[in-house]
Amino acid sequence: MATRVGILTGGGDCPGLNAVIRAAVYRGKNEYNMEFVGIRYGWKGLLEKDTIPLNIDDVRDTIAIGGTMLRTSRTNPTKTEKYIKTAIKNFRDLELDYLIAIGGEDTLGAAFKLWKIDNDFRVVGVPKTIDNDLWGTDVTFGFDTAINLAVEAIDHLHTTARSHNRVMVVELMGRHAGWITLEAGIGGGADIILIPEVPFDIEKDLCEPLRKLKAEGREYAIVAVSEGAKLKVDEDRDGSLIIQEVDRDEFGHVRLGGIAKALAEQIEDRVGWESRFVVLGHLQRGGPPSAFDRVLSTRYGIAAADAVAEGLSGVMIALKGSVVEPIEMTEEIKNIKKLPEEYRRMAKLFSPKTGK
Amino acid sequence: MATRVGILTGGGDCPGLNAVIRAAVYRGKNEYNMEFVGIRYGWKGLLEKDTIPLNIDDVRDTIAIGGTMLRTSRTNPTKTEKYIKTAIKNFRDLELDYLIAIGGEDTLGAAFKLWKIDNDFRVVGVPKTIDNDLWGTDVTFGFDTAINLAVEAIDHLHTTARSHNRVMVVELMGRHAGWITLEAGIGGGADIILIPEVPFDIEKDLCEPLRKLKAEGREYAIVAVSEGAKLKVDEDRDGSLIIQEVDRDEFGHVRLGGIAKALAEQIEDRVGWESRFVVLGHLQRGGPPSAFDRVLSTRYGIAAADAVAEGLSGVMIALKGSVVEPIEMTEEIKNIKKLPEEYRRMAKLFSPKTGK
Amino acid sequence: MATRVGILTGGGDCPGLNAVIRAAVYRGKNEYNMEFVGIRYGWKGLLEKDTIPLNIDDVRDTIAIGGTMLRTSRTNPTKTEKYIKTAIKNFRDLELDYLIAIGGEDTLGAAFKLWKIDNDFRVVGVPKTIDNDLWGTDVTFGFDTAINLAVEAIDHLHTTARSHNRVMVVELMGRHAGWITLEAGIGGGADIILIPEVPFDIEKDLCEPLRKLKAEGREYAIVAVSEGAKLKVDEDRDGSLIIQEVDRDEFGHVRLGGIAKALAEQIEDRVGWESRFVVLGHLQRGGPPSAFDRVLSTRYGIAAADAVAEGLSGVMIALKGSVVEPIEMTEEIKNIKKLPEEYRRMAKLFSPKTGK
Amino acid sequence: MATRVGILTGGGDCPGLNAVIRAAVYRGKNEYNMEFVGIRYGWKGLLEKDTIPLNIDDVRDTIAIGGTMLRTSRTNPTKTEKYIKTAIKNFRDLELDYLIAIGGEDTLGAAFKLWKIDNDFRVVGVPKTIDNDLWGTDVTFGFDTAINLAVEAIDHLHTTARSHNRVMVVELMGRHAGWITLEAGIGGGADIILIPEVPFDIEKDLCEPLRKLKAEGREYAIVAVSEGAKLKVDEDRDGSLIIQEVDRDEFGHVRLGGIAKALAEQIEDRVGWESRFVVLGHLQRGGPPSAFDRVLSTRYGIAAADAVAEGLSGVMIALKGSVVEPIEMTEEIKNIKKLPEEYRRMAKLFSPKTGK
Repeated sequence: MATRVGILTGGGDCPGLNAVIRAAVYRGKNEYNMEFVGIRYGWKGLLEKDTIPLNIDDVRDTIAIGGTMLRTSRTNPTKTEKYIKTAIKNFRDLELDYLIAIGGEDTLGAAFKLWKIDNDFRVVGVPKTIDNDLWGTDVTFGFDTAINLAVEAIDHLHTTARSHNRVMVVELMGRHAGWITLEAGIGGGADIILIPEVPFDIEKDLCEPLRKLKAEGREYAIVAVSEGAKLKVDEDRDGSLIIQEVDRDEFGHVRLGGIAKALAEQIEDRVGWESRFVVLGHLQRGGPPSAFDRVLSTRYGIAAADAVAEGLSGVMIALKGSVVEPIEMTEEIKNIKKLPEEYRRMAKLFSPKTGK
Repeated sequence: MATRVGILTGGGDCPGLNAVIRAAVYRGKNEYNMEFVGIRYGWKGLLEKDTIPLNIDDVRDTIAIGGTMLRTSRTNPTKTEKYIKTAIKNFRDLELDYLIAIGGEDTLGAAFKLWKIDNDFRVVGVPKTIDNDLWGTDVTFGFDTAINLAVEAIDHLHTTARSHNRVMVVELMGRHAGWITLEAGIGGGADIILIPEVPFDIEKDLCEPLRKLKAEGREYAIVAVSEGAKLKVDEDRDGSLIIQEVDRDEFGHVRLGGIAKALAEQIEDRVGWESRFVVLGHLQRGGPPSAFDRVLSTRYGIAAADAVAEGLSGVMIALKGSVVEPIEMTEEIKNIKKLPEEYRRMAKLFSPKTGK
Repeated sequence: MATRVGILTGGGDCPGLNAVIRAAVYRGKNEYNMEFVGIRYGWKGLLEKDTIPLNIDDVRDTIAIGGTMLRTSRTNPTKTEKYIKTAIKNFRDLELDYLIAIGGEDTLGAAFKLWKIDNDFRVVGVPKTIDNDLWGTDVTFGFDTAINLAVEAIDHLHTTARSHNRVMVVELMGRHAGWITLEAGIGGGADIILIPEVPFDIEKDLCEPLRKLKAEGREYAIVAVSEGAKLKVDEDRDGSLIIQEVDRDEFGHVRLGGIAKALAEQIEDRVGWESRFVVLGHLQRGGPPSAFDRVLSTRYGIAAADAVAEGLSGVMIALKGSVVEPIEMTEEIKNIKKLPEEYRRMAKLFSPKTGK
Repeated sequence: MATRVGILTGGGDCPGLNAVIRAAVYRGKNEYNMEFVGIRYGWKGLLEKDTIPLNIDDVRDTIAIGGTMLRTSRTNPTKTEKYIKTAIKNFRDLELDYLIAIGGEDTLGAAFKLWKIDNDFRVVGVPKTIDNDLWGTDVTFGFDTAINLAVEAIDHLHTTARSHNRVMVVELMGRHAGWITLEAGIGGGADIILIPEVPFDIEKDLCEPLRKLKAEGREYAIVAVSEGAKLKVDEDRDGSLIIQEVDRDEFGHVRLGGIAKALAEQIEDRVGWESRFVVLGHLQRGGPPSAFDRVLSTRYGIAAADAVAEGLSGVMIALKGSVVEPIEMTEEIKNIKKLPEEYRRMAKLFSPKTGK
């Protein structure tokens, strides 16, 4: 009898999700004769038995489409005992042998926990976060699409900033880690890059370099800042900076330009250089996946079907160097992958050096 | 002796400015043997005699570059008597015969006024506004680039909105006229389009259609709203809507998602549909000009040089149907070109019809 | 009883076709209570009664998608008496009151002829050609998308040409008229533009200007040439130029870089400047429609439904200046709209002037 | 005294070259107080002492620009004894301490050879090829930009192919290795992918799968083929296939759609499915670098300056997993990095399975 495999996507959507699903279905059906069941809206769909069939024709033309054909939600199936029981019961009712769970630390953590509770609840995880800060894998899909969009946006801001002799502050995603801001900032030719991993001094790390650029005759400047960049408040010289309290969405992303707006105002006040800001927000999450993300997602989907065929469970697919392979999930999945030292140093390379 | 022509760009930057300058210089030098002087930072450069030479080599490789190689400012040379005198004196000191002034209603209005004061201050205007709301010309350059960027952004939001079962509110430029919002909204397949020309009722024009979409099983919705869209406050049923007071930039553009944020909150409260918002802001202003804008700008630049060669003054270049031609500037330049009835009706075509 | 309207698309596909269909269905259903029948594969579908229903849900999410959801063919329903009879009979069998025919001179010409034969075969035409050379309308949709793609391609070639000190010859669509080549050439900053309307002398119009550029120290050059550009053969100085015989597709487009390849070889031989070429071919026809094309197509679709509602027949929708309106179709539909004098003159503006 | 470092770029241009130069100059000047000399047109510039200064201001705004600001050529400085002597002599005359040579197997091989001949000719290589087939490094920059362009092009072809019920054959770069074709083919959703590493049978690998697709009701198909894909001629069933002899450019790339054209004709003849083809050619080489390429190139440039600072010579910079580091250059640099088994298997995953 054919192995029956459920697939779900949880958490924030991300370009490449459809490519994972597509590749798993192609590999599973063409090479292992598996059957697939699409579970809609993440764990919510498992709790509610909201499913769709997944055949080759359903997934064929989806690789260029962003988002997830299975839809997504933030439902956590391990929130209550009742949820846990329902999830495990429905897994059986749907006659599933395996579940491929595509998601971030929450989705994968829940899958891991359910499998620990019931070893028949066999799971293969596929790591997903646009922020590239997930434990265990070198790169997550969606990230490359996000930085391409962000770099193109920053490219566009150069000419308007230069024409008006302005500083342009661009706020990028990344509450805990600066991957998007660093890579988009480097790629977009930002003069100053501020990331969560390295709390900044508003004078030393922002205003002084800008004053130096201005003094050197530079007509404009670009500042790339993570939504989660943190101020070294104790070093603030005059205490005037107040980052306004702002709404954050369920991914923790700042809804309204909190930090970018605050920095633009500080720059005008302290440096006397006209400043504007842009918050890229949801734009970073949308659109067709980049070529890199399409290929990586396809490799992840293939590896997930292979892992099922090999009878593995409690594993997640990971990119290690050039190789895509299953690794064992552990509690470490909760850890954030922060920027390594090479990258933190790179963040400062293109700023003017100041004596302070 | 060669005719000496100054060129300046004033007001907000706009994709296509370099193409106007480039075409004017090519036409003027190659066909009329003119000399060109670039005046930097708009009228400010005339007041300060801040100029650069403009030869073929200076303008050759500029057509793909956004912004303005001459830089820009918001200085108004008719603000004081002293400014007026200085402007006219410097025009003479620079030995200019003509000035090609590229800008919006303020820049062209000032040019017109200076010429009225001194008929030797010969001016040819080229209309520029990204908002497409300028009097006298069918289309302004920069607008097409802006709507292409906005449509691509809205395209990208569909997949993320759909994946999460959300309403996405997109705020677009347009304080007084809805050209960008209407065309980007239609192009981006928005379900609801709110423009300054047609004040809206929050229940009848926003919430009711959304409820109907949801009831019909639609998974998501896109709302396109002009920064300057206006609420029919007297019809607001419960008085709860408060558009927060927000900063506006010097073009009157809302700096921080005032209206989009307010509408997303109202939709969540009143309709119970999860909502997010995006403010495109300065992204609409940047980037390489679209093909349409490059060609239109080139035609404007050619026509400006031709107008100088013909000895015209007090004219502005305009697109009338398929023809680019000089028209007389009048006080009407201050008028806003609002959306015609055909477009206002189109704005409502793709919304669900409700009984209310 | 509701008016029943068939829609078909004929000839080469073109970005914007889906937007026309979508807008006609929205307008027709929401404002006039019409019923729509999609006829697949152009006239072929009418001859074979190959139809699909067209409701709001079928067309809603199609505006960003290139090509035509109704598919297309080159079948001519007036080719034989039998075809004519079948077309008219099937129109009745399908209980159609109107046909909206979207296509070029062939499709519209056939619609016009069938209506002349049988006045109950009521037709409203919508003009379509990517080449922008259709009679009766100022602009056709699809053209703007094509020139945006072509301009972006030419933009990309500048850096590689410059890095290698080369001439790059780009071949663009346009067998009879140079619209795409002229506008993409101007937009892409081409040094030399060769169009069907102005047969060229290989020495005077190509090699001499290139020699002059080279002598002036220019590192590279871009030549934009229409597939249908014609050589003034009698003026060829040494008779060595042979344009190879090439395949043309059913739109008359050169399949394999006939003219671009020939010109690149001639430039290497005569000027001694390393040359490469690129044939854009089908790339010009694909992809999501530009913002301009989405809006224009939508206006065409609305106007087509309005024309049906007004009981018109034998008309086509046209853009005249800023207005979209029905005009009477005549035999003139067979005429090609060539580049006007303003444009032909613009084609030469950015080439170096030579004494010859 | 400051270390003096020459930089040159050799071979085909590639997006990312400017980012390497820029990052090396920033790192070298800001952290090691080095001096830089730009050598123009590759080794040709060293033979002719054609140099420019390279300071921060010269490289600052170059990261978004394709091609190479230093220009390039195919000159081989080890071609003759005289060249070798001149190269070494000029290295001294220019008072260089180091040379950073950015290029492919030829450029790096020559650098390695000159250093072997004279150990004072200290060299650090940076690997460059758009084809991603260079020995020693996991990924080369430029490749990601190329596949993004190719994937976008293939995306665009889907709608036109589908509208016309056609097969579209796309020819991609890759004479010896199928990296671009495989990744662009997977990313673009190609039905059939033909690469140099796996010679193909025209019936079994092309026509049979197409017949099966057609029989299953698929409306269209996309074939991605490397310019260097090879036919298993001995297995050709009827001997009718003749790949025409074609020009190849200096990188070995087919100038005129040799294989794509031949395959399109064969498909029409053997399968009876209307077919068209497109040759992407130089379009794959141009344009602004992708985000990935900008970051990778920046890391390469930084690592090159670091290697100079450490006093290394005879090394090249390589990406190994997540780490960028210097490795020793060896004769193996001449080897082609072919697609690994995982990728070859992936190439066949999305084709319909046939019994043959």
